[in-house]
Amino acid sequence: MFVLMVYDVDVKRVTKVLKIGRKYLNHIQNSVLEGELSPAQYQKLRHEVMKIMDPDHDSVRFYLLRSTKYLTIEKLGVPSRPGDAGAFL
Amino acid sequence: MFVLMVYDVDVKRVTKVLKIGRKYLNHIQNSVLEGELSPAQYQKLRHEVMKIMDPDHDSVRFYLLRSTKYLTIEKLGVPSRPGDAGAFL
Repeated sequence: MFVLMVYDVDVKRVTKVLKIGRKYLNHIQNSVLEGELSPAQYQKLRHEVMKIMDPDHDSVRFYLLRSTKYLTIEKLGVPSRPGDAGAFL
Repeated sequence: MFVLMVYDVDVKRVTKVLKIGRKYLNHIQNSVLEGELSPAQYQKLRHEVMKIMDPDHDSVRFYLLRSTKYLTIEKLGVPSRPGDAGAFL
């Protein structure tokens, strides 16, 4: 499934959260990652993020798309980082 | 359609881009907005953003979903800002 992860975490934890995210997804934009994951991989990612984040101060959102049939991605401005999944959609 | 907007723009233009985004979408997280728009509304939003952003330095991505049939949003941590569209998905 297609997974989009956006996070808003305290600067103290940003590097750790990004590092976990990049194990599973492509880093597309500041605080935004996306990629294709199996449900099992997603559960692992979610679990690792939950271990690091502070639920009283941080916010992490996952958009899970079981099909990209209805999805279009429009990109304006500078090219995304390497690994941009938009290229195949 | 469901529209998710994520932006990474120079601090000089952040306030303006956010202000435009909020005319059309709900501000959900730092640099993330989402909501339901008609195709015409989306074109207006896109047009206004393009007028403000610097395409050589800024990046704005729109994820357009013509149906939310396959979409799930998982939220971890602090409650989102008011207007969080996740509530009805």
